[in-house]
Amino acid sequence: MDLWYTEKHTDHSGITLRIKKTLFSGKSPFQQLDIVETEDFGRMMLLDGLVMVTERDEFVYHDMITHPALFTHPAPKNVLVIGGGDGGSIREIVKHPGVEQAVLCEIDGLVIEKSIALLPTMACAIDGSDPRVTLHVDDGIAYIREHQNAFDVILIDSTDPIGPAVGLFEEEFYRLVNGALKEDGIMVAQSESPFYHAEIQRAMYRNLRAVFPIVEMYQAFIPTYPSGLWSFAFASKRYHPVDDFDRQRAASRPFATRYYNEDLHLGAFMLPTFARENISA
Amino acid sequence: MDLWYTEKHTDHSGITLRIKKTLFSGKSPFQQLDIVETEDFGRMMLLDGLVMVTERDEFVYHDMITHPALFTHPAPKNVLVIGGGDGGSIREIVKHPGVEQAVLCEIDGLVIEKSIALLPTMACAIDGSDPRVTLHVDDGIAYIREHQNAFDVILIDSTDPIGPAVGLFEEEFYRLVNGALKEDGIMVAQSESPFYHAEIQRAMYRNLRAVFPIVEMYQAFIPTYPSGLWSFAFASKRYHPVDDFDRQRAASRPFATRYYNEDLHLGAFMLPTFARENISA
Repeated sequence: MDLWYTEKHTDHSGITLRIKKTLFSGKSPFQQLDIVETEDFGRMMLLDGLVMVTERDEFVYHDMITHPALFTHPAPKNVLVIGGGDGGSIREIVKHPGVEQAVLCEIDGLVIEKSIALLPTMACAIDGSDPRVTLHVDDGIAYIREHQNAFDVILIDSTDPIGPAVGLFEEEFYRLVNGALKEDGIMVAQSESPFYHAEIQRAMYRNLRAVFPIVEMYQAFIPTYPSGLWSFAFASKRYHPVDDFDRQRAASRPFATRYYNEDLHLGAFMLPTFARENISA
Repeated sequence: MDLWYTEKHTDHSGITLRIKKTLFSGKSPFQQLDIVETEDFGRMMLLDGLVMVTERDEFVYHDMITHPALFTHPAPKNVLVIGGGDGGSIREIVKHPGVEQAVLCEIDGLVIEKSIALLPTMACAIDGSDPRVTLHVDDGIAYIREHQNAFDVILIDSTDPIGPAVGLFEEEFYRLVNGALKEDGIMVAQSESPFYHAEIQRAMYRNLRAVFPIVEMYQAFIPTYPSGLWSFAFASKRYHPVDDFDRQRAASRPFATRYYNEDLHLGAFMLPTFARENISA
């Protein structure tokens, strides 16, 4: 059977990938979850029919949602991930030797369960093998409300602002995150495509600027995401991701990275003009 | 009719775009040329069935093949484009007030003719309106052989290294380009996708390094190109694109740019680790 998956990024354009077989297909209380084997991109997880991660290009997303914050904060010990049930962000966080506690708070237990079963290269640190890691199957907003002044870094590894993630793009949520961070804490959130999602970005960055003194956007290239150009919001209470970046510490990291490096850290904040304009105040 | 164009970037993956109508479809002595109207990306030109440019995202490609070289060279006066029959590169070159001569050498006259007729936003400077611009319908290799020591900047705005463009990726050609440049000249060439074309890049950069003392790769995001991550080779006889870059001159450019800016110029050279490794000697 010649099977193709096509994701429309708009009504009129998208990507198409040849599929070898479906490994899992089911419905949780929150969303439709599918895990398929592609010809080109390895295994791929879809939520409500949209690509979340593929084995071939997840290194970009997971390098870039984690390392810029963890190498800007001078000594991150307590790190929280909201969402990110595939485990890829936690895998990168625990590569930092100074991290003492990495908490995953994912609303959908089925995502965690099937990632551990079917996406082991991503879920390798949420399978119980690392004592620094704890998992909570819980609503991120509720969790954060109950854990104020607790974290050095909080990463919002969410889906798009539709469905269960919609509250994770609102000012009220960012106020809770601000409170859950210690006085010099950093939040990073995936912030959609500058090419396709200018309106979402405008609202999101306005909400962030109402809460955090330092708010910057940075970019990464993710082939299976709409347009290939993706972005992250860096929101911080004290440290600036460029001005306070210790290039030498990042350069002497004790692990390999296929996307992130100490130069790219700086370059990622140097945005195309149209992307900068999306979020100009 | 629900009409979709699908370009396979490999045998197993690609992009798909809804098409409103076909504006031109014909064969030149060199290649198949199609110009269609898409729903999302405006008009689109295809050569031998591959996307060359779309009206919506061509600003990225044309900003980035031109301005990094033209803002690195302190006073570019004579500029040559090999390929680039759509005219977008020439349009950007003549925005630089110091440019006295912009030469387009395109092997396929049909591309020029149909771009002037159907892609006026790109071809607006090759339609006879700018006295600094001259057009040659000629083989780029032959043209360069006959114009040694003539140009400050030469841009290789070519198709992929298959079909008519294959010779434009070889060491012998780069030697001719080197000779066609003045003693402080700069060449920029499109250099494929670091994500999909590692082998092509490896050979191309090896060939360039055999000829030029300064060879660097830089990146740009082009949604309709394979993977969305595209690259350019910067090969230079004297000026380094980062160390010798006059940020202030670029910042005070007398024209607007939707992609390029003086910070992005620097950031574009800060590559993902895997891209850097593609071209490590």
